[in-house]
Amino acid sequence: MRHLDKSIEALTESYTTYGLVNFSGGELLPSTQGVATIVSGFEELVFPGFREDEAVDRDNLLLATSEKVYRVARELIKEVEKSLAFAAKSGNSLWSGKDSCHEDAEIIVENFFDELPQLRVLLADDISAAFRGDPAAKSIEEVIVSYPGFEAIAVHRFANFFWKAGVPLIPRMMSELVHSQTGIDIHPGAEIGESFFIDHGTGIVIGETTIIGKNVKLYQGVTLGALSVKKIEANHKRHPTIEDDVTIYANATILGGETVIGRGSIIGGSVWITESVPPDSTVYLKTGEQVVRPKK
Amino acid sequence: MRHLDKSIEALTESYTTYGLVNFSGGELLPSTQGVATIVSGFEELVFPGFREDEAVDRDNLLLATSEKVYRVARELIKEVEKSLAFAAKSGNSLWSGKDSCHEDAEIIVENFFDELPQLRVLLADDISAAFRGDPAAKSIEEVIVSYPGFEAIAVHRFANFFWKAGVPLIPRMMSELVHSQTGIDIHPGAEIGESFFIDHGTGIVIGETTIIGKNVKLYQGVTLGALSVKKIEANHKRHPTIEDDVTIYANATILGGETVIGRGSIIGGSVWITESVPPDSTVYLKTGEQVVRPKK
Amino acid sequence: MRHLDKSIEALTESYTTYGLVNFSGGELLPSTQGVATIVSGFEELVFPGFREDEAVDRDNLLLATSEKVYRVARELIKEVEKSLAFAAKSGNSLWSGKDSCHEDAEIIVENFFDELPQLRVLLADDISAAFRGDPAAKSIEEVIVSYPGFEAIAVHRFANFFWKAGVPLIPRMMSELVHSQTGIDIHPGAEIGESFFIDHGTGIVIGETTIIGKNVKLYQGVTLGALSVKKIEANHKRHPTIEDDVTIYANATILGGETVIGRGSIIGGSVWITESVPPDSTVYLKTGEQVVRPKK
Amino acid sequence: MRHLDKSIEALTESYTTYGLVNFSGGELLPSTQGVATIVSGFEELVFPGFREDEAVDRDNLLLATSEKVYRVARELIKEVEKSLAFAAKSGNSLWSGKDSCHEDAEIIVENFFDELPQLRVLLADDISAAFRGDPAAKSIEEVIVSYPGFEAIAVHRFANFFWKAGVPLIPRMMSELVHSQTGIDIHPGAEIGESFFIDHGTGIVIGETTIIGKNVKLYQGVTLGALSVKKIEANHKRHPTIEDDVTIYANATILGGETVIGRGSIIGGSVWITESVPPDSTVYLKTGEQVVRPKK
Amino acid sequence: MRHLDKSIEALTESYTTYGLVNFSGGELLPSTQGVATIVSGFEELVFPGFREDEAVDRDNLLLATSEKVYRVARELIKEVEKSLAFAAKSGNSLWSGKDSCHEDAEIIVENFFDELPQLRVLLADDISAAFRGDPAAKSIEEVIVSYPGFEAIAVHRFANFFWKAGVPLIPRMMSELVHSQTGIDIHPGAEIGESFFIDHGTGIVIGETTIIGKNVKLYQGVTLGALSVKKIEANHKRHPTIEDDVTIYANATILGGETVIGRGSIIGGSVWITESVPPDSTVYLKTGEQVVRPKK
Amino acid sequence: MRHLDKSIEALTESYTTYGLVNFSGGELLPSTQGVATIVSGFEELVFPGFREDEAVDRDNLLLATSEKVYRVARELIKEVEKSLAFAAKSGNSLWSGKDSCHEDAEIIVENFFDELPQLRVLLADDISAAFRGDPAAKSIEEVIVSYPGFEAIAVHRFANFFWKAGVPLIPRMMSELVHSQTGIDIHPGAEIGESFFIDHGTGIVIGETTIIGKNVKLYQGVTLGALSVKKIEANHKRHPTIEDDVTIYANATILGGETVIGRGSIIGGSVWITESVPPDSTVYLKTGEQVVRPKK
Repeated sequence: MRHLDKSIEALTESYTTYGLVNFSGGELLPSTQGVATIVSGFEELVFPGFREDEAVDRDNLLLATSEKVYRVARELIKEVEKSLAFAAKSGNSLWSGKDSCHEDAEIIVENFFDELPQLRVLLADDISAAFRGDPAAKSIEEVIVSYPGFEAIAVHRFANFFWKAGVPLIPRMMSELVHSQTGIDIHPGAEIGESFFIDHGTGIVIGETTIIGKNVKLYQGVTLGALSVKKIEANHKRHPTIEDDVTIYANATILGGETVIGRGSIIGGSVWITESVPPDSTVYLKTGEQVVRPKK
Repeated sequence: MRHLDKSIEALTESYTTYGLVNFSGGELLPSTQGVATIVSGFEELVFPGFREDEAVDRDNLLLATSEKVYRVARELIKEVEKSLAFAAKSGNSLWSGKDSCHEDAEIIVENFFDELPQLRVLLADDISAAFRGDPAAKSIEEVIVSYPGFEAIAVHRFANFFWKAGVPLIPRMMSELVHSQTGIDIHPGAEIGESFFIDHGTGIVIGETTIIGKNVKLYQGVTLGALSVKKIEANHKRHPTIEDDVTIYANATILGGETVIGRGSIIGGSVWITESVPPDSTVYLKTGEQVVRPKK
Repeated sequence: MRHLDKSIEALTESYTTYGLVNFSGGELLPSTQGVATIVSGFEELVFPGFREDEAVDRDNLLLATSEKVYRVARELIKEVEKSLAFAAKSGNSLWSGKDSCHEDAEIIVENFFDELPQLRVLLADDISAAFRGDPAAKSIEEVIVSYPGFEAIAVHRFANFFWKAGVPLIPRMMSELVHSQTGIDIHPGAEIGESFFIDHGTGIVIGETTIIGKNVKLYQGVTLGALSVKKIEANHKRHPTIEDDVTIYANATILGGETVIGRGSIIGGSVWITESVPPDSTVYLKTGEQVVRPKK
Repeated sequence: MRHLDKSIEALTESYTTYGLVNFSGGELLPSTQGVATIVSGFEELVFPGFREDEAVDRDNLLLATSEKVYRVARELIKEVEKSLAFAAKSGNSLWSGKDSCHEDAEIIVENFFDELPQLRVLLADDISAAFRGDPAAKSIEEVIVSYPGFEAIAVHRFANFFWKAGVPLIPRMMSELVHSQTGIDIHPGAEIGESFFIDHGTGIVIGETTIIGKNVKLYQGVTLGALSVKKIEANHKRHPTIEDDVTIYANATILGGETVIGRGSIIGGSVWITESVPPDSTVYLKTGEQVVRPKK
Repeated sequence: MRHLDKSIEALTESYTTYGLVNFSGGELLPSTQGVATIVSGFEELVFPGFREDEAVDRDNLLLATSEKVYRVARELIKEVEKSLAFAAKSGNSLWSGKDSCHEDAEIIVENFFDELPQLRVLLADDISAAFRGDPAAKSIEEVIVSYPGFEAIAVHRFANFFWKAGVPLIPRMMSELVHSQTGIDIHPGAEIGESFFIDHGTGIVIGETTIIGKNVKLYQGVTLGALSVKKIEANHKRHPTIEDDVTIYANATILGGETVIGRGSIIGGSVWITESVPPDSTVYLKTGEQVVRPKK
Repeated sequence: MRHLDKSIEALTESYTTYGLVNFSGGELLPSTQGVATIVSGFEELVFPGFREDEAVDRDNLLLATSEKVYRVARELIKEVEKSLAFAAKSGNSLWSGKDSCHEDAEIIVENFFDELPQLRVLLADDISAAFRGDPAAKSIEEVIVSYPGFEAIAVHRFANFFWKAGVPLIPRMMSELVHSQTGIDIHPGAEIGESFFIDHGTGIVIGETTIIGKNVKLYQGVTLGALSVKKIEANHKRHPTIEDDVTIYANATILGGETVIGRGSIIGGSVWITESVPPDSTVYLKTGEQVVRPKK
C-alpha cells in the first residue's frame, strides 16, 4: 500500500494548486456542526423540558436558563462573526466591515435573544393551528413531540430572524439542517404569517421571495416556486403570495412572483397553478384525466 | 453583553406566565432520545449482527440477547409509563389509572416481547417481498442493509403494536423517527398486511385509518389520504382500503375512507383517485395531457 | 417481569431455527456505521476545512492529509474486504475468490485514492453549475455548506466508483446514506456527466441504468424510472437517457430504458413522459386541466 | 448460563433484605461523577485557559465565564442539596432542615462564588511559593501545568470552604478525588495558611484537625497524624500544629493534637515526632543508625 | 515530514523481526479497558445506586439488575476466555485446555455470580470496620463514597476470587487498576479475613503470600513484604502472617514468610520487623533516635 | 440567584487585573489533554495490540501504523510548537526563535520517530529485567499489562528524549501524567540505564540530576533526592548517582549530588544515606532500634 503516498501528494498538491473546493487556511466559514448545536440550543430554550433527556427542575429554572442562554450566545456569536467576516471579505455585507465583526455579531445575538420570548408566543400559535388542523392529532403535546412540520416552522422562524438581520450562510445552513430532518425546504427569506400548519410535509419547497399570510395550511409535496430561474432575476420577487386562511393540498404546485392565491381559497391536491386565483376560490383537478380499465 | 440578563428574565418569566409550549415541572412526556434508543434496541434484537458494529458471537448469543432484552425492556417501561401517566392525567387513557401506570407498562412490555419472535417472521416476509419485487435488488442482505422502505415497515410494525395497546404518543414518535430518516410517513394506526414492499419511498404518506392487504407494493410519493380533514370526523375511517396484491406506482394519490382499491389492481404513477376501483383494474394517466414542442 | 425469560428463549431459538433475517456467526456484512464513517472521511479529504470542526492548518496539511488517507484507507479496505467475501461466497463476484479478498480490496482502494484528485475537479464543476443555476445562491461557499443536491452528487460520484469496481453492497449503502439525509435517491449504477445540478432535491429517484449527460439540471421530485419492473429484466437498460444541457422541472416523471430526452430540452414540472423527446424540445402541462371556482 | 437467573434473584433479594451497603430508593447521596465535574469546573474558572482544550477568547471572556458559573452553580446546588438532605435526615445537619435544603444550598453556593476571586489570589500565592521553593521549577507556568502538590492545595481550598460551611460528604469526596490523582491526602477540615508548597507529594497525609501556618513546605510521605485513634475523641484536636515558615522533609511523621512545630523550624526527612519542637529548631536523624558493610 | 515514512517502515519491521514487546496477531490478552469496565460493573452490582449517575428505581430493580448481570457476565466471559487461552498456550493452565476455554470461562463466571451476594455481606463488614475504626468517619455512607481503602478491599475481594479460580492475568490487572487509583497495592493472592480496614492507604504493599486475619487495621505506607526476592523461591510463602485484631500504624515494614504478628498486637508507625512478634505485643520506635537543636 | 452576576463580574475582572494565575489570550501552553493523548499514542506504537481495544490485524499493520504515526506526529508537533514558542517568548529557549518554532518542532518530532524503534529494544530489556527480578511475575505479558513500574519507565524514556531535545514543559507534563497514575515520580532529566526495574513503585521520587546505571532495581517509597534545595543551586548536580547492578529496597532515602552508590551494592529498606557507599556494599538498619513489649 506504499502507493498511497503518491495519492497523498497528489491530493495535497491539488489543495494548493486547484483550490476552488477547499478552504484550507482561508477565511473560516460557519461550522455545520456548530449551527446544529445552536439550533438544538434554541429548541431547548423555547421548549424547556421537551427536547431534553431529563426533566427541567422548576427550582433551578433561572440557573438552567442562564447557563443555556450564555452557552448558546457564545456559540452563536462565534458563528455569526465568521459569517460577517466572510461577507465583509467578499464585499457584500450589510454590516460595516471586517474590524467590527465581533461587535456586530454581539448586537445581532442580543437582538435575537430579545425577540426569543416573542417567538415562543408565535410558535404557540403554530402549535394550536396544528392541533386544530389535524383530526389525527390527539393532544397539543403530540404536536410538539412528533410533528415534523412544526419543527420546520420553528427553525424557519429562527433562520428568518438571521436572514433579516443580514447574516449570510447561517440562515441557509439552518433551513438545510431541518430540510434534511423533515424533507421540508423553506428558504429562510420566505415571509410566513401566524398560525402556520404543515402536515406530513415531505417534499415541500417554499422559495426565497414567497409571502404567506395567517392561518395557512400546507400538505406534503407542495411547491411554492419560481416560473423562471435566470440568475439575473435574483433580486425580483420570483415566488408566489399566499393570502390568509388558504389551504393547499398535497403535491400542488404554485409558481411565479406575481401569482397570488386569494384569501380563504382551497387549492386541491396535485394542481398546477401559474396565475393568480381570486379570494375564496377552490381549485381542483378535472375528473376524467385518467383511464380505469380491467387488467389484460 | 450584560443585556442578556434581561432576555433571560423575560424568557424565564414567559415559561411561568405563558406556559403553553413548555412542560417544565409538569407530567413528564416520553423522551425523543429515549424512543430512538428503544427503536435501535428493537432492531438489534430483530436483526442481530446486522445493525451492530461488531459481529454477534454465537457462543454468547443467549447472554447477549438477555442483556439486550432487559436493557430495552427497562427503557421501554420507563417511556411507556410516562405515556400512560400523561394519558391518565388528561383523562383519556385506555388503561385504568395513574396509580397502576408502572404495572400497566410492565404488562404491555411483556406482551410486546412475547410477540417479537412472531414479528421477526412477518419482517422476513417483507424482506422476501422486497427482494422479489425489485429487479435492482441483488440479494436478501442488500434489502436489509440498504432499503429505507424496509426500515419504515419494520418500525411501523413495532409502532402499530403500541398503538393497538393503547399507548399514547410513543407510536407517533416512532413513526416520526423513521419518517425523518426515510421520508416515509406511515401513521401507526394504519393496518398493513403481510409481504409489504415500499420502493424508494420518499414522500409516501399513509393515513391513520388506512387498511392495506397482503403483497401490496408502493412506490415513492404515494399518498393514501383523507378527502376531508375536519376535526370532528377524527373517529371515522378517513383513509382508503388497499386490497391484496395491489401495486401503486410513484406519486399516485388515493383519497377517502370509502375508497377501495380492488385486489390485484395496478395503479399507475401520478394518478388521482377518490373513488373505488374494482378488483384487477389498471388505472393510468390519459395520454395527450401535455404539449411537446420545439424551444423557441 | 420473570416472564421475559420465555421471550428471550423464544427469540434466541428463533435466531437459530428461523435464520432468514439474522446473520449471527455467518459471513460478515459491511457495517452501516463503518460506511458512514468512510463517507465522512471522503468528504474531509475532498473539502478540507469545510466539514470539520476546526480549521485546517496549512503547516500541517501534508501530515493531516496523510493521517486521514491512511485512516480512511484502513477502514475502507476492511469494509470492501467483507463485501468481496460476501460476494465470493454467493458465487457472483467480479473478483477472483475468497482467498484474495484482502489483496483485491487493497487494489480497489488504491485505485480509488488515485482517482480522488480527479474527483475533486469533477465536484468543483458541479459546484459551479449549482452556483450558476440557482438565482438564490449567493456564493460558491453557500453551495458547499448548504446544498443537499451537491451532497447527493458528491456521494454518488464516490459510490459510482465502487459500483464500477464490482464491489457489492457498499455502493448501495452509500447512496442510501445520502438518500436518508437528502431525500435524493440516486442508484450508484447511474452514469452522470459533468456539471450536474440538483435543486431542493427531495423525492428525486434516479434508477440503476439511467444515463445523464453534461450540464443537466434536476428539480425536486423528479423520477427517472422504469416502465416495467419485472425481475427478469434486471440486466436490461430500464431507465431513461438524459442528454447534455437538459433541464427537468419539479415532479416530472420520465420512464423507460429507451426513452431519450434530447439535448437542450426543457421538461416542465409535473409532466409524465414515457417516450423519447427530440433535442431542443420543451414539454409542459396543457392548461385547462383543472377547475377554478368560488367556494360554495 | 440460565443459572445466572438464580444469582440475579439472590442479588436482588440481598438488596432488600440486607440493605446495609446499598442505597436503592432511599435518600440520594451526592454523585462521585457529579463532584468530579464540579471540581473540574472550579479549575476552569480559577485557571481559565490552562485546563481547557481550546484557548480562552478574550472577546468572549464574560460570556464564557457566565456560562461556566451558571453551569457549575447548577450542578453544585444539586449535589449540595442532596448532602444537606442526607444530613437533615440523619439529624445532624448544621442547617435548618429538610424543607429548606434547596434554599440553603443556594445560599452556600452563592457564598462560594463570592469568595472565588479571593481564592484565586490565595492560589497565586501558593504558585509563587512553589516556584520559589523548587530549584527544578523553570517557570510559573510549569507549576500550574505539572505540580500535583499545587493541584492538591487548590482542591483542598475548595473543599475546606464547604467543610466550614457545614456541607457533609462533598468536602471529603473532593479531597478523595484529588488524593486518588496525586497520592496526597489532605482532610478537608485541615486549616492551611498562605503560600503553602508541597513537592512530589505522594504519600502525604494531613489529618482533620491539623493547623498549618504560612509559608510551610512539605515533601512526599509526610504524615501529620493522630497519636491515638479512639472514636470517642473525634471532637478533640488530634493532629499537630505547624507554625509559619516550617519545612518538613520527606517521610517525616508528626503526631498528636498538642504537638506544635515552632515557627521557622526544619524537620529532617524520616524523623518521628510526637512532642512539640521549639521555634527555629532543626530536627534530624542521628547518624549511625545503620550498618554499611561489604556484601558477603 | 516525508522522512516519517522511513520511521514507519522501521517500526513496522521492528514489529515483525523483534517481536518481544508486541503481540500483533497472536493470542489475545485480556484488555485493560475491558477489565476496568468489568470492575465498574461489579461495583454497580454490589453498591446499587452509589456508583451510578442516576438513582436506582426500586420498581425496576429486578430488570436493572438482570441487565447488569448479563452485561457484566458477557464481558467477563470474554476476558476470562482470553486469559485461559493464553495460559493454555503457554502450558501452565489449571484448566483443561484450549478447546474448552469458553465453557471453562462460563463455569468460572457463574461461580463468581453465585458468590456475589456473599461478597456483599463481607464488604458490609469491611465498611462497619472502617466506620468504627476512624474517628473522622461521620457516617457509613461517607466510608462508601470517600474511602480509598474500602475501594481497594472491595476490588481485592473480587480479584482474589479469580486468583483462586486459577484465572491468569486478570486478577493482577484488577489489583493494578485499583493500585493506580488508590496507591494501595494488594497482590490478588493475599488472603484477607473479615472486617479489614485500611486508612489513607497510599503506599501500602501487601505481597502475594500474605495471610491476614480478622479485624486487622492498616495505615498508609505499610509494607507486608518478602525478605529475599529470588525467583526460585516464588512458590514458598515469602510474606508475613498477620493474626486477628492486629493494628499496624503508618509506614511500618514487616518482612518474611515466617514472620507472624501475634493476635491483638499493635505495631507502631515506621517500625521495621523481620521476626515474629508474640500475641498482644506493642512494638514502637525507641525514643532518642533523632536530634533536635536550634537552627544555626 | 441573581447575585451570581456580581461574582461573575468580580471573577472576570480578576482575570484582567490580577492575571498571574490565568493565561487568557496570551501565548498558548501545551494542553494536558493533548499530552495525555500523545503518550497513549506512543504506547500504541510501542506495544501494538496491547493497549488497544481490538486486536491488531497483521494484514493492515503498515496502514494502521502509518495512520497512528501521522496522527501522533501531528498532535505532537502542535504541542511541541507551543512549548518552543513559550520558551522563545521568555527568552530561554535552546532553539533559535519564535519564527522557526514550527520547523523546529518538525525536526524534533522526526528525530523522535527515528529513535522509536530503538526505544522499543530498550523497553524490551526493561520488561525482561522485571520478569527476572520479581518472583511473583508469571509471564512477560503480565509485566506489560500490570506493572506500573514498567509504565513509569516507558513514559520516562519518552519524556527524557524531549528533555534532552530542549523542549520545555512537555517532558514534565509527561512525567506528571504517569506520576498521577502510578505514584512514581521520575524527573524527566534523570538519566537511567538499561534494564531498569521498579517494583510496586508508589512513593518513589527520582530527582532531576540523578544518574542511574544498568540493571538497577528499585522498590516502593525510595527517594533519590537533594540534600539542599536552594534555588540558586538549580544548575548543580543535586541528586545521587546509582551505579550498575544496585538494588535499593523499599523506603530507602539517598540524598545529595555527590553521593554515589557503588556498583553491585544492596541498600536495605528504610535506610537513610547522605554519603557515598563503596561498590559491593550492603547497607541495612541496625537492629534494636525499636521496643517490643506486651500491651498494657
